[in-house]
Amino acid sequence: MSTIDIFGSDNHSGVDPEILKAIIEANKGYTIAYGYDEYTEKAFDKFREHFGKDIDVYFVYNGTAANILGLKAVTDSFNSIICSEVSHLNVHECAGPENFIGCKLITIPTKDGKLTIEKIKPYVSGFGDQHIAQPKVISITQPTEFGTVYTPQEIKKIADFAHKNGLLLHMDGARICNAAAYLKLGLREITRDVGVDILSFGGTKNGMMFGEAVVFFNKKLSKNFIYIRKQGMQLASKMRFISAQFIAYLSDNLWLKNAEYANSMARYLYEKIRGIPEMEITQRVESNAVFVNIPKKYIFKLQRKYFFYVFNGQARWMCSFNTTREDIDRFVETIREVLDKEKLVE
Amino acid sequence: MSTIDIFGSDNHSGVDPEILKAIIEANKGYTIAYGYDEYTEKAFDKFREHFGKDIDVYFVYNGTAANILGLKAVTDSFNSIICSEVSHLNVHECAGPENFIGCKLITIPTKDGKLTIEKIKPYVSGFGDQHIAQPKVISITQPTEFGTVYTPQEIKKIADFAHKNGLLLHMDGARICNAAAYLKLGLREITRDVGVDILSFGGTKNGMMFGEAVVFFNKKLSKNFIYIRKQGMQLASKMRFISAQFIAYLSDNLWLKNAEYANSMARYLYEKIRGIPEMEITQRVESNAVFVNIPKKYIFKLQRKYFFYVFNGQARWMCSFNTTREDIDRFVETIREVLDKEKLVE
Amino acid sequence: MSTIDIFGSDNHSGVDPEILKAIIEANKGYTIAYGYDEYTEKAFDKFREHFGKDIDVYFVYNGTAANILGLKAVTDSFNSIICSEVSHLNVHECAGPENFIGCKLITIPTKDGKLTIEKIKPYVSGFGDQHIAQPKVISITQPTEFGTVYTPQEIKKIADFAHKNGLLLHMDGARICNAAAYLKLGLREITRDVGVDILSFGGTKNGMMFGEAVVFFNKKLSKNFIYIRKQGMQLASKMRFISAQFIAYLSDNLWLKNAEYANSMARYLYEKIRGIPEMEITQRVESNAVFVNIPKKYIFKLQRKYFFYVFNGQARWMCSFNTTREDIDRFVETIREVLDKEKLVE
Amino acid sequence: MSTIDIFGSDNHSGVDPEILKAIIEANKGYTIAYGYDEYTEKAFDKFREHFGKDIDVYFVYNGTAANILGLKAVTDSFNSIICSEVSHLNVHECAGPENFIGCKLITIPTKDGKLTIEKIKPYVSGFGDQHIAQPKVISITQPTEFGTVYTPQEIKKIADFAHKNGLLLHMDGARICNAAAYLKLGLREITRDVGVDILSFGGTKNGMMFGEAVVFFNKKLSKNFIYIRKQGMQLASKMRFISAQFIAYLSDNLWLKNAEYANSMARYLYEKIRGIPEMEITQRVESNAVFVNIPKKYIFKLQRKYFFYVFNGQARWMCSFNTTREDIDRFVETIREVLDKEKLVE
Repeated sequence: MSTIDIFGSDNHSGVDPEILKAIIEANKGYTIAYGYDEYTEKAFDKFREHFGKDIDVYFVYNGTAANILGLKAVTDSFNSIICSEVSHLNVHECAGPENFIGCKLITIPTKDGKLTIEKIKPYVSGFGDQHIAQPKVISITQPTEFGTVYTPQEIKKIADFAHKNGLLLHMDGARICNAAAYLKLGLREITRDVGVDILSFGGTKNGMMFGEAVVFFNKKLSKNFIYIRKQGMQLASKMRFISAQFIAYLSDNLWLKNAEYANSMARYLYEKIRGIPEMEITQRVESNAVFVNIPKKYIFKLQRKYFFYVFNGQARWMCSFNTTREDIDRFVETIREVLDKEKLVE
Repeated sequence: MSTIDIFGSDNHSGVDPEILKAIIEANKGYTIAYGYDEYTEKAFDKFREHFGKDIDVYFVYNGTAANILGLKAVTDSFNSIICSEVSHLNVHECAGPENFIGCKLITIPTKDGKLTIEKIKPYVSGFGDQHIAQPKVISITQPTEFGTVYTPQEIKKIADFAHKNGLLLHMDGARICNAAAYLKLGLREITRDVGVDILSFGGTKNGMMFGEAVVFFNKKLSKNFIYIRKQGMQLASKMRFISAQFIAYLSDNLWLKNAEYANSMARYLYEKIRGIPEMEITQRVESNAVFVNIPKKYIFKLQRKYFFYVFNGQARWMCSFNTTREDIDRFVETIREVLDKEKLVE
Repeated sequence: MSTIDIFGSDNHSGVDPEILKAIIEANKGYTIAYGYDEYTEKAFDKFREHFGKDIDVYFVYNGTAANILGLKAVTDSFNSIICSEVSHLNVHECAGPENFIGCKLITIPTKDGKLTIEKIKPYVSGFGDQHIAQPKVISITQPTEFGTVYTPQEIKKIADFAHKNGLLLHMDGARICNAAAYLKLGLREITRDVGVDILSFGGTKNGMMFGEAVVFFNKKLSKNFIYIRKQGMQLASKMRFISAQFIAYLSDNLWLKNAEYANSMARYLYEKIRGIPEMEITQRVESNAVFVNIPKKYIFKLQRKYFFYVFNGQARWMCSFNTTREDIDRFVETIREVLDKEKLVE
Repeated sequence: MSTIDIFGSDNHSGVDPEILKAIIEANKGYTIAYGYDEYTEKAFDKFREHFGKDIDVYFVYNGTAANILGLKAVTDSFNSIICSEVSHLNVHECAGPENFIGCKLITIPTKDGKLTIEKIKPYVSGFGDQHIAQPKVISITQPTEFGTVYTPQEIKKIADFAHKNGLLLHMDGARICNAAAYLKLGLREITRDVGVDILSFGGTKNGMMFGEAVVFFNKKLSKNFIYIRKQGMQLASKMRFISAQFIAYLSDNLWLKNAEYANSMARYLYEKIRGIPEMEITQRVESNAVFVNIPKKYIFKLQRKYFFYVFNGQARWMCSFNTTREDIDRFVETIREVLDKEKLVE
């Protein structure tokens, strides 16, 4: 089995056996399509177990859709959405937010992917000026695209600021479980309880096959979401196969176990490379990602053995629910070999 | 096991065991995400086996997306798309085509879902008039939303007319395999060989779990499709789980066997009800659908036992790859019971 | 001076001298831009004189914008708008409504351009079905694109039906003054008083240079219109030059005098050609348009002397505030000449 | 006559008498609508006099439309447009570009409103990566929103860089004539000759009533513009009244005389306030704008006498074709009074 794809992305892993088992078991008999089935109802119950009552949950196919449709539900075309310059929303959704929502992204430079009130404040202005896109949502990513984790206090500050100014707080939680695992807090404690209004709840990067949830903590915000989802090409016919995954994912702490494990592997990788002088670890290792600066000359050599992305100049290595210590040991060995060889060449 | 959902839709069935097996087997090791993996390459080969060389194939999550994104790839916002008034595109995609493509649908009334040149002709006009949306695509559904099947000659006529006037021919093939099975022709013979330019190739209604393909028979038309797909929220990260399904679906005639079987069940259902006087079969049974007019008073009674949709005033009953003769026998028995009871009540 | 353009459109006329005078007089000193000036405030007062208090009025550049932006203000992208198949909205705005509003037009065939409840009813359905664009607005044109005029009773019936079903009534009033003149009723009596919710109020075809008003009879509907207008590229900087026109137009019955005159000229044209055997007058002459069927062989000959449009197979001749009896006499003479010559050729 | 609006914007002025005369003279007889008239043809000739042959010119109502539609003509929805963070496109068009073009703006911080290759370069990347909006256009404003003027060499550098990378260069020339006047160069020399591909050519801020031109220096780029303009609600019916203005504007150096005069007035204002210690002039005075930092406490006091906008923290004072030396003298006197009074209060 090829090892080249192990650290490139947590999307390179397959499906957790428990999730796959749930899919297989859901493949029985006939069920109504488009989300009116019993699996979906049970999956909603699982979300309520974690996030409490009076929420609205909708399943879509992937994280890009969860972000874009969740934001569309709460914005008008003349609004602006404030997000980090490195947010997935801004960088990796091919202008989908602008296209489908039809509104403006205001993008804020950051070093570690985290927004703060100080950075946001200048853009929360222009209310009532017809020339200016009206601010409506702040969107943060937890953990950030750099793997760093907002504390609940940090989130609450942003949420309070948003609400005080008539804005909403959206959270891109593609890897939200990794943040919860790091913070040793429940899913509700780092979202709903600290003021998040709309959450993109992801599972694919943590062992699911496909499927993402849009969670509204205020039911008024979701009143038209069924139409937005269908119009947005995201209404799954055989919905039970998404729902069954979420039931398994949110049962028996599977979400947490996988996230804790992936985090611990990133930590292990971090410990093993932190002493290498050619490597500068650029971000705090708080979830399942390790970001490093390495001299350019090593990058291509290394990518040929272990493919990885370079994001804003930094190499990104991801661990997942099925990365092993041996994978990491071999990877670090390869890194050392590449560094050594290159040094000799010089 | 509940029987209420058997005939409501071919989406109410689960996943064909061969497809599920392929998914399980694809769950090994790490593969690169977003379609650059070996499963996807192999799936493309399977499409080339059926449709020939020099095609471009892209996987998306569902049929709505295949239609909308395939059409977006070949239109500008000032274009019009000509389709049947009962087309899925027009009726059941919640204005998604207008919204995402930003252009006009011209919708033509039909009795059996089929377009003809005579009906289309008046709308292929206004070229060069700046006030008028410029016609660009004719979209047909095969089989139609009423289960009727275009002959290859009928398609070719429309294709020739389209091309002569500078238009393209799009085919919504959500159930294309059922049409091929009915016509006893290969997939290529009823699409590429008769002038179809862009095909939405569906499998979910015929045993797949999710996933649909957009097939371009002219590579020039697809040159920007990767961006359109991503922007359209339809780029699957763990693509191998769509690709593996298509490999199985297009191997060993699975697509054909399932379609033939579903068609034969619809035929069996048709034979069993055609003599019932209260029922008027409204459409030719050429694929896996049976459409009937039944007096309104029976509809609700029957829907409580066997849920089904009423489409343009006609009850729609669908068969699938796992409908059984016993299912149908019991269904017809129930129909007779409902009719009898209702008669007594009168 | 060339006469070829006299009957082609009421847009072919220039500007009424009173309007031009108002423009010249407004060209004094400095005024704040974008509609916060005193001319604009005074123009709003004029609208309130005619339509009553508690209305919201916004000026845009043209009728296409008035229609599209007025409708955008009251719809979501998953809505549908019901209109006549021959409506300007559907035929002559180059898919602008679909593009900018992002929603669906449902287009209904008519002979005289008029919608009725019977025709509309089948499309006011599907509420709550996530697959189906949700009906939200009925849009009628007064007078219709065929020059026919809705009675207040006809409008009220449609309005009542709309409101009972949770829909709104929009009126494209590009030539609304011609309808009022025909009906011998005030502007309010044929709009607000009979249930119209949003009105596109046009003046360009009746003597103005440019500028159109969107009138909301319910202020809740317009709460975001300033942003929609700016985003829609329709916020005029030197607004006073639109406002000054509307002040003059709505003063001293200028709007009415011009409309009555144009109507009377159409009536005069109608009287002069009704006896000509080769001509079939196809629509009731109720405003400033005359529609006729004439054999194809005459059309091109005649168009070379008097340019006109052929709309849905019918020649359309328009009169305006400055068409003269002599213009018409000469036109009819030319018609007779063309007919005679053609006959000799035969 | 109130003086409060003199320096708030060059839009606060009325219409140049020569322009108004041209409008009055165009108000004769009937002409075909929608731009097929002789005035429009003659106006095109005037543009060719200035910009050379083989160009395509289209008139729209205003500058926002010229920018958005010109850019829409050359982009796909998956593209990005690179512009300055303070560009009108980004700040003052209420997300219209994102909404109508459906694509991404990449906004670059600047101090004086000017882009440079160094700033642009990092964003001209990601080609071929399906996740990333593909760079397509660089848009610069001449003069910038801060009144500074690009030299032809600066423009050419950006143009060359753009073209080398497969991008186009768009220029927002809302005040292009002020730049030409400052540089003492012809309109062609600072646009077409230095590599600009699409130009928004404005006149409203320099004496016109309304109307803006989109000029394409490569006819291939404009092949669908008539549909984009109509769909974009920007096709004027009585087009002659825009065209007549442009004929006058581009004749007898009116465009230049007005621009030179407005520039000289800004220079005069600059000279008169440069010595005032409480004022920091923040931008080079190269066109008809003066930007100053003044302590906050003076701003409101002063705005009550002379209304002006504060843009990015800087007070903006604009001169126009009819600002007089006396206007400026009185303005500066008022400034001094306000400063003095405030000082006493302290």
